[in-house]
Amino acid sequence: MKRKICVVVTARPSYARIKTALAAIRDHPDLELQLVVAASALLDRYGAAVKVMEAEGFRIDRKVYMIVEGENLVTSAKSTGIGMAELATVFNDLQPDVVVTVADRYETIATSVAAAYMNIPLAHVQGGEVTGSIDEKTRHANTKLADIHLVCCESARIRVEKLGERPESIFLTGCPSIDLAREALEEKRDVAEIVTRYSGVGAGVDVREPYVVVMQHPVTTEYDDSYRNTAETIEAIEAAGVPALWFWPNVDAGSDGTSKAIRVAREHGRLRQVHFYRNMHPADFLAVLMHSRGIIGNSSVALRECAYLGVPAVNIGSRQRGRDRGRNVRDVDYGRDAIAAAIRDVWSATERPVDMIYGDGHAGKRIADVLATCPLTIDKMLTY
Amino acid sequence: MKRKICVVVTARPSYARIKTALAAIRDHPDLELQLVVAASALLDRYGAAVKVMEAEGFRIDRKVYMIVEGENLVTSAKSTGIGMAELATVFNDLQPDVVVTVADRYETIATSVAAAYMNIPLAHVQGGEVTGSIDEKTRHANTKLADIHLVCCESARIRVEKLGERPESIFLTGCPSIDLAREALEEKRDVAEIVTRYSGVGAGVDVREPYVVVMQHPVTTEYDDSYRNTAETIEAIEAAGVPALWFWPNVDAGSDGTSKAIRVAREHGRLRQVHFYRNMHPADFLAVLMHSRGIIGNSSVALRECAYLGVPAVNIGSRQRGRDRGRNVRDVDYGRDAIAAAIRDVWSATERPVDMIYGDGHAGKRIADVLATCPLTIDKMLTY
Amino acid sequence: MKRKICVVVTARPSYARIKTALAAIRDHPDLELQLVVAASALLDRYGAAVKVMEAEGFRIDRKVYMIVEGENLVTSAKSTGIGMAELATVFNDLQPDVVVTVADRYETIATSVAAAYMNIPLAHVQGGEVTGSIDEKTRHANTKLADIHLVCCESARIRVEKLGERPESIFLTGCPSIDLAREALEEKRDVAEIVTRYSGVGAGVDVREPYVVVMQHPVTTEYDDSYRNTAETIEAIEAAGVPALWFWPNVDAGSDGTSKAIRVAREHGRLRQVHFYRNMHPADFLAVLMHSRGIIGNSSVALRECAYLGVPAVNIGSRQRGRDRGRNVRDVDYGRDAIAAAIRDVWSATERPVDMIYGDGHAGKRIADVLATCPLTIDKMLTY
Amino acid sequence: MKRKICVVVTARPSYARIKTALAAIRDHPDLELQLVVAASALLDRYGAAVKVMEAEGFRIDRKVYMIVEGENLVTSAKSTGIGMAELATVFNDLQPDVVVTVADRYETIATSVAAAYMNIPLAHVQGGEVTGSIDEKTRHANTKLADIHLVCCESARIRVEKLGERPESIFLTGCPSIDLAREALEEKRDVAEIVTRYSGVGAGVDVREPYVVVMQHPVTTEYDDSYRNTAETIEAIEAAGVPALWFWPNVDAGSDGTSKAIRVAREHGRLRQVHFYRNMHPADFLAVLMHSRGIIGNSSVALRECAYLGVPAVNIGSRQRGRDRGRNVRDVDYGRDAIAAAIRDVWSATERPVDMIYGDGHAGKRIADVLATCPLTIDKMLTY
Repeated sequence: MKRKICVVVTARPSYARIKTALAAIRDHPDLELQLVVAASALLDRYGAAVKVMEAEGFRIDRKVYMIVEGENLVTSAKSTGIGMAELATVFNDLQPDVVVTVADRYETIATSVAAAYMNIPLAHVQGGEVTGSIDEKTRHANTKLADIHLVCCESARIRVEKLGERPESIFLTGCPSIDLAREALEEKRDVAEIVTRYSGVGAGVDVREPYVVVMQHPVTTEYDDSYRNTAETIEAIEAAGVPALWFWPNVDAGSDGTSKAIRVAREHGRLRQVHFYRNMHPADFLAVLMHSRGIIGNSSVALRECAYLGVPAVNIGSRQRGRDRGRNVRDVDYGRDAIAAAIRDVWSATERPVDMIYGDGHAGKRIADVLATCPLTIDKMLTY
Repeated sequence: MKRKICVVVTARPSYARIKTALAAIRDHPDLELQLVVAASALLDRYGAAVKVMEAEGFRIDRKVYMIVEGENLVTSAKSTGIGMAELATVFNDLQPDVVVTVADRYETIATSVAAAYMNIPLAHVQGGEVTGSIDEKTRHANTKLADIHLVCCESARIRVEKLGERPESIFLTGCPSIDLAREALEEKRDVAEIVTRYSGVGAGVDVREPYVVVMQHPVTTEYDDSYRNTAETIEAIEAAGVPALWFWPNVDAGSDGTSKAIRVAREHGRLRQVHFYRNMHPADFLAVLMHSRGIIGNSSVALRECAYLGVPAVNIGSRQRGRDRGRNVRDVDYGRDAIAAAIRDVWSATERPVDMIYGDGHAGKRIADVLATCPLTIDKMLTY
Repeated sequence: MKRKICVVVTARPSYARIKTALAAIRDHPDLELQLVVAASALLDRYGAAVKVMEAEGFRIDRKVYMIVEGENLVTSAKSTGIGMAELATVFNDLQPDVVVTVADRYETIATSVAAAYMNIPLAHVQGGEVTGSIDEKTRHANTKLADIHLVCCESARIRVEKLGERPESIFLTGCPSIDLAREALEEKRDVAEIVTRYSGVGAGVDVREPYVVVMQHPVTTEYDDSYRNTAETIEAIEAAGVPALWFWPNVDAGSDGTSKAIRVAREHGRLRQVHFYRNMHPADFLAVLMHSRGIIGNSSVALRECAYLGVPAVNIGSRQRGRDRGRNVRDVDYGRDAIAAAIRDVWSATERPVDMIYGDGHAGKRIADVLATCPLTIDKMLTY
Repeated sequence: MKRKICVVVTARPSYARIKTALAAIRDHPDLELQLVVAASALLDRYGAAVKVMEAEGFRIDRKVYMIVEGENLVTSAKSTGIGMAELATVFNDLQPDVVVTVADRYETIATSVAAAYMNIPLAHVQGGEVTGSIDEKTRHANTKLADIHLVCCESARIRVEKLGERPESIFLTGCPSIDLAREALEEKRDVAEIVTRYSGVGAGVDVREPYVVVMQHPVTTEYDDSYRNTAETIEAIEAAGVPALWFWPNVDAGSDGTSKAIRVAREHGRLRQVHFYRNMHPADFLAVLMHSRGIIGNSSVALRECAYLGVPAVNIGSRQRGRDRGRNVRDVDYGRDAIAAAIRDVWSATERPVDMIYGDGHAGKRIADVLATCPLTIDKMLTY
């Protein structure tokens, strides 16, 4: 009997972080993959990860619409509750041997609670990291609900153990997103060709010339500041005068603040050297990133993939607070002057140091092996 | 401006564990109590705590029906999700300054997630304890979602700190349930009069003669065993031949197994010295308990209130595993012979040692004082 | 390509009313049956129709837990909403060509709305009848949402047409419950043997001697009266002094009033000639019914199956108001004296007239044939 | 005791259709208004009716987020179910004497079912009309759930009566939207000033010169056609070569098809004489409309307000099929040529005939009077 491994993917970035593990589970002789796509991963305006997944050959077992639209934080909680109720029905139908929840987006706790309450062993990928914001609470709550911990870096392994989890339930696998970075490095794709396949809006940016990449997410617990923070980044990019490819934020309370700042700037004739994309296939995105002078914003990509790839990064504000970072990262606060200065540093950087702190590029295979062989139990207690 | 403290009570036993704190919050000059009653606390067949609360003078601000009926674990998860979606609306209406979630029943995480995701500071009462079963996961996940920790005993305080919470956010208040035990001790009520006010079913038991109290809850992660475990306890009581007052279990996946074992036994003419109650006012229950020869089963009352009151206890099976206990407790496994032997020990015990490990009887007041004065923040990170 | 026919069964009595159609759909060469079991049909305390269905060889495609527990009408609405959200996901998974909703219980509108809003042709069984109470509103709303109408009697056909539905979308099939009555008539089973297979509670009733059957449902819009109405029936049975087999009511707001009246009566030593059953296999129930002196209460069985079988009936109160009835029915109000007098009449009746107003016993087959051949469209307008 | 009238507003256009009734209820000496805002009426991207309502002095009693985001019809059903569950809680809190549901958008049935199942008398505004599409089913199902019918025109009154409703429960009040048209006629506002207060996107249109208004909604049961139909309208406008103010569609399954057609056209450099608005205050919109050469699309505004105002209309496709219309309307199919020809007709029209078929401009007051005095009952049966 193959073990049935049910993975719930809830967002475009989560897919990138689990993709090689999905393939490795699907292809493992002792495992059967059950793939549930939910939340913003189903929605066009957040990049419709589901379509990418289908295009890449994954068969979707269930789709769960759960995002309640709204303009404040109340809908994050409601969406999570609705997803939990629905996922319970899904797990009851699919009867998995293990459920896998990925990282720390708010809606991931729906997966964790549903599995835990149904006595299904829960594996959590990417626990033990620290970032601040609501993700911090979600991530560690996921850890306390999980039975199997698949962590990305040594500092995360130590933290999960300190959180009272049994050492034998913690596996240092590295992060599957680094697997994609490894593949991207090996592939050496043509960025000029890639960008012709995406429309987006805004100015034309010639990617044969130097450019930067921008990814700035709203910081949930600073809801009212989303608009202002984005505006500072916009001003810094204008001041630095560098061409940029800006990738649109994912769904989150506060995302409207971010969107609005961009819209307002564009309507006032700013950002004339910036092209906006809603989404790109991860492999394409990594090629664009590798080829860039650096990444600006607060995405974890700057710390993780870019550490492995050696891409310089300007990391703005508190969102990545406490997360391990390599020598590629320059941390700055929200002010436009500091951001602009850091952008100029990155632009003219001559060295691109590489750090393997988040994995060696073979995490997906390692995760599948753990799931095929680890003991399955739902009974645990604090180790202290 | 008074701080608005929103307490969500989801079950009859939770009410007993928070009642003196509710009164202290309501009566505190700097606090305003917002009382939400939800889940089984609204349901007649689980003792309708809501009616007791109203009778005791509490004004209910909102009622949230959320228990989905069913015969397996899937409905625990669904109920939690539905409660989460509803509580988000409630918190959005009431706009509290602090939300309080009580202990570790599965549905309490609905309160915790909704408050955390809405950036409302969350206070958790009774964190840091250990028990095994699904409560264990829920409790520590509540801790990771909470900003303020109101713990009952020193070992709990240490565990919450080890879980990476900031020491200044942890307050050792003792357990409000012990406050009720203190009041019961002071009141010295007449048990023979008390029982005339409750009907129940089963044999008449003369409480002027010695008797024991029975409370046995299903153990969620051992769903299929509920019937069998209860049957063992039934046989043990028959074998010991002692009159007993049996208090009906609360709602939980598996409760039907427990109920059925009792029903089958009664239909076969067993349990002729046992009277069954669905519920009793906590003060009445404590008087009945103090007056008894001992308590049989797996209720935490046996470890907490009974430690303070010095009531001997037979604690069966794994449900209270790892929880601090005083000298009043005899632990036994599920076998009928061991249980019967322990009942006989308790029945003839000559000493009733008292331990204050769960509080000195003034926890409610202490909790209100903490909530009135502690800093309110929603931003936290692991301390390591 | 076979047409995929998705039938949603939400309660024990609904199963009896659709069973022969389920079998005929499953066995039809041009149809594929998709069977969804939901609501109280999943719950032990309402007879767990799902277990009967599985025992009778039906494969269940999906189970939907949706009943929110509570003590007032608010939970009927909440249960319906939750069921609607879940059924949408189920229909999205199963992609049926037709959805079938059965009769008029409150939760059936969840099926109707979900199918209609997803542009799936909706067939409604048992529209066009009149009864009063909330069922009345639900039934006609179902008709307005449905595209195909499978009605039981000529007066129903006329009413659906008057409601503005196109004549070519209305099919007079008779009621599948009468198919079971026909089978029961042909089988001639031994009632004395049947009752040995059900335990129930209460007095032993010797079914080789004369007896009556009792089925009394709460009347939703008279919530507060449930207790009182049941008490009147109890007094009438006591006054008539007849042995009775009482079948427990199905889930509904107000069912607790009914249950409580019975419990109170039994605790006061009444109903010593009454045996209570929670449920019986429909075929067994029909045999018990045929063999009885008559049926007492407000069940539609008294009007439908009993018309075909010629079983005398005392129909109490407003629940069946306006529904077609044969010569077997005596209508009375809630007063104990009138009920008792009618029971005595029934007890001593010498004639048992038969009326085929609800069908000739071949409705299931006819329904399957309609579903296999009728045009499928979702576009309709009032005919006036 | 004032009667408590709870009105649920779920969308921007519904607000326009009930606004004068809201004010009249609020100001009526025997009534108390309870205002619930739900669904897309809370969402910025559908015009945030809630902000307009607050700005116009209405106090909101409850907000219900219920729209589940998605790209297909399944989310319409899910949103309705979630709204139903939430509205049950709201009605339980507010304890209204009457609930008012407005018109026929899909989510309105959530209000109707919740009220009906909770035994609260339900008033339905704008029943008895015919349109085709899913609105048709929703509208008549609302009628069957409602106890009080407040209809807009004589043909609607007759249809509701034919649907089996008691004549004494049907009140011909006219449509409150016509009240606003009357006010707009009396106010004679300056359109050139009005448009300066809205940004929108697209070309500048000089409203001192002739222009048309465009409003085209997706037709739910023709989901896949939304993109194509909108594209035809776009081509027709290009062909006619007239300046246009285009008002963005409301939330609905399929709205993405409409949005996309517009986006694609703009990215290809079309629609250079068109300015797009997401929303306008109803009074401003009516002034813009009165001042225009005509309205193009499939909005009911073209039939209702424009009949009263005498504004010529090109009504495209099936969405308004069967609805009463005045002499101002030209009906055309989806083809670009027919639409363009009709636009040219409208553009050069010399007469603007007025018809009062949908009311005389005093409906709001009349509705409040009915709600203050009509008998309140929840018990009804078909009249045939």
